[in-house]
Amino acid sequence: MIARTPEPPYYAVIFTSERTDVDNGYGETAERMVELASQQSGFLGVESARNEIGITVSYWSDLEAIANWRKDAEHTLAREKGRADWYRVFKVRIAKVERDYDFKK
Amino acid sequence: MIARTPEPPYYAVIFTSERTDVDNGYGETAERMVELASQQSGFLGVESARNEIGITVSYWSDLEAIANWRKDAEHTLAREKGRADWYRVFKVRIAKVERDYDFKK
Repeated sequence: MIARTPEPPYYAVIFTSERTDVDNGYGETAERMVELASQQSGFLGVESARNEIGITVSYWSDLEAIANWRKDAEHTLAREKGRADWYRVFKVRIAKVERDYDFKK
Repeated sequence: MIARTPEPPYYAVIFTSERTDVDNGYGETAERMVELASQQSGFLGVESARNEIGITVSYWSDLEAIANWRKDAEHTLAREKGRADWYRVFKVRIAKVERDYDFKK
């Protein structure tokens, strides 16, 4: 689902990844991280798609909210499993959304 | 493929969409737009994934490069077809990438 974010400015964390073949609880953890992120102060929404690569974009009110989410203990454990098991390669980009517009049929 | 972007700052255009059921040349046009974008001055890379929703993130050196790509005649026609045929809803966000980091196994 397309995230219903407020008027800019706000922040986007663009997480692009290629998976390994290892499952080891990946799906459950991915779902749990969305649930947990949604409870964080400053969380605005998340969008996710995967075929050859995966792209997850989460939206946040400010850099402090992103830093706090990064410090969350369960999220930190999940990131460690991500490096050990699930991801062959990934890239994270922190970006400030300056403008947006949308279209609906 | 994960885009090999230079050191920040640079810009990201995050295009999130839900498709209609209409094909009408969608795949060919999507490929052609990547080819054409790649030839633009200031283009840095593109990443794309789709399942329930589609996310395409293109990366650009600056806002002027994004504005020039927007003015491209063939791209403008494709955007019109996108609104008429291919997309039920979409959102475009223009964001300045301030930091990035990556991981490789």
